[in-house]
Amino acid sequence: MPVDGRRGEELSRLPAAPGPGPGPSRPTSADVARHAGVSRATVSHVLNGTDHPVSEQTRQRVLAAARDLQYAPNASARALRAGRSNIVLVPMLRSATVPGADRFLESLDRELAARDLVLLMHGDRTTSGVRGAQAWAELRPAAVYVNVSRGTPAAVELLRRAGVQAVLLTGAPRVDYAPTVPLDPAAVARLATRHLLARGCRRLACLVPSGPLAELPTQRYEAVMEVAAADGVPVERVDCELSSDSIAPVVDRWRDPAQRPDAVYTNSDPFAILLIDKLRAAGIEVPRDIAVVGSGDHPLGAALRPAITTATFDVPAIARVVASSIRRLLDGADLDPGLEAALRPHLIVRESG
Amino acid sequence: MPVDGRRGEELSRLPAAPGPGPGPSRPTSADVARHAGVSRATVSHVLNGTDHPVSEQTRQRVLAAARDLQYAPNASARALRAGRSNIVLVPMLRSATVPGADRFLESLDRELAARDLVLLMHGDRTTSGVRGAQAWAELRPAAVYVNVSRGTPAAVELLRRAGVQAVLLTGAPRVDYAPTVPLDPAAVARLATRHLLARGCRRLACLVPSGPLAELPTQRYEAVMEVAAADGVPVERVDCELSSDSIAPVVDRWRDPAQRPDAVYTNSDPFAILLIDKLRAAGIEVPRDIAVVGSGDHPLGAALRPAITTATFDVPAIARVVASSIRRLLDGADLDPGLEAALRPHLIVRESG
Repeated sequence: MPVDGRRGEELSRLPAAPGPGPGPSRPTSADVARHAGVSRATVSHVLNGTDHPVSEQTRQRVLAAARDLQYAPNASARALRAGRSNIVLVPMLRSATVPGADRFLESLDRELAARDLVLLMHGDRTTSGVRGAQAWAELRPAAVYVNVSRGTPAAVELLRRAGVQAVLLTGAPRVDYAPTVPLDPAAVARLATRHLLARGCRRLACLVPSGPLAELPTQRYEAVMEVAAADGVPVERVDCELSSDSIAPVVDRWRDPAQRPDAVYTNSDPFAILLIDKLRAAGIEVPRDIAVVGSGDHPLGAALRPAITTATFDVPAIARVVASSIRRLLDGADLDPGLEAALRPHLIVRESG
Repeated sequence: MPVDGRRGEELSRLPAAPGPGPGPSRPTSADVARHAGVSRATVSHVLNGTDHPVSEQTRQRVLAAARDLQYAPNASARALRAGRSNIVLVPMLRSATVPGADRFLESLDRELAARDLVLLMHGDRTTSGVRGAQAWAELRPAAVYVNVSRGTPAAVELLRRAGVQAVLLTGAPRVDYAPTVPLDPAAVARLATRHLLARGCRRLACLVPSGPLAELPTQRYEAVMEVAAADGVPVERVDCELSSDSIAPVVDRWRDPAQRPDAVYTNSDPFAILLIDKLRAAGIEVPRDIAVVGSGDHPLGAALRPAITTATFDVPAIARVVASSIRRLLDGADLDPGLEAALRPHLIVRESG
């Protein structure tokens, strides 16, 4: 929470906000200062949590005065008057199980806070277009960061008319109606496939996890197909779930070497871990008989044996350039020039493939 | 920021939205009942969180129908016209890696939406007390749901004075200054330990993952100690990380049967999976030589062999009673009477212990 000195000063220069409650006499920080017998600066230091040293006794007196007077800073109301807020609104990703999604949000919060911005996440994971934009605009954010599939041209227009200063989209392909972070979640699948082809694999399989997340694995399957087709290599599509019942029949079929791929891209590391467990039980050795590559660099993938080769994004680096780009847009500048570089996936070659 | 009637009017001057906006044919609970193929009474039971037993399948059907039709119960519609906000603000949990945290938020969003409430998450994961409350109050939520360690008495008072109608805390022990969801994250450790003692285990070990989440594993270790001590059973504390380098030396020591516990509570299923992998490599068999029990019911725990015995909470059930309790508090009623039952952990006995 970037309640820092600069912000505290900004706030104290803004006019008093109208209250949430009834009555014209909403207390100001000056009233709190008078009531506590301290300066307005001290009130600001205490209530905005600056680094300025304030004795515990004084702090308690200010808090007590704020309480007595029912003083609650209303940054949103002030921001509205001044035509700005410091809220960055991120509608939640479609599924809780997108690998790395929560790690991304944790990093993004830290990076935004360092730039005097507050991360708010909207819990609704599906509403998109104009209906989504109406819900997001009601929160009067300074910026909205949302997937391009939900941030349609009409949605972006509505947000801008509603006073949102920066609308940053994410996803591929890049669009022309709003700045876009061209993050392509299928890029890891392309990288993994190129690696397997370079290793000499000539018969691929691709696990396609079903369920609420099916969209992403299907995009990745298509990316594997595309890269493999360029080398004339066939790809077997294996729809499955992260369960024993789902993977066992596949492995059973692969007991026959004539039916067996020489490499599998599993979409995520947990699927790679499960597949290797079932292959081992069937006497099929990884990587000798089948190479296995996952995505997302799950800690278990590095710790188990064989360790999982994985294609992954640098999640903290992406959070950093996204936060920096939002700050820059709010300040009237362009996207962070390091954006493209931070979005490039990389391969961690371990034992499985 | 309140999503209230006034704002709705402002927005209606923006480009018109397609879809089920505030048209003349506002759906009623009868429409929801027809759409879901159930009675109006059932719709009421599900959306108002009464005691009446409703099957999970039916419940999900009603929630889906309410969402499809954008059904908003009348009481809430009145509240919206009266200028109240429908925002439930949840400050994010300390760490992204709390098992089940994101699954909980996904369920909570669905349950709140069915009750005409909007889930917003504040990205800051650490600010607590009065400073936290000021940041949360600025968003003018109808309700705040936050851990008891961050929702101090002064914080709760500030929120109430700022107009927040329902402040619901979560955590153990229950406090007297605000309604509390007495969810004790250590309860799963107690349950697991009682299970291991009942199996006849007489020498326990407890993995205590270090890192940003250390607080929770330590609470669970203390719970294991407490339950085991009552039976005079010693507990070895093993501080570790989810990495090969961290677990390997522990397993090395346990090669000596004189040094070896007969059961391990691992805190989470991924740690159980890693431990079993390293034990296997050392020729120590699970559960024959050591029983292993995790927590959280990770899908991999069910799918790998040996399948992991796990003590876990019913995350969707908890989300349901939390949402229902918030709705009831806003409507001037008490917490959902099904709260205590939904918080009870349960054990899934599989192969590992």
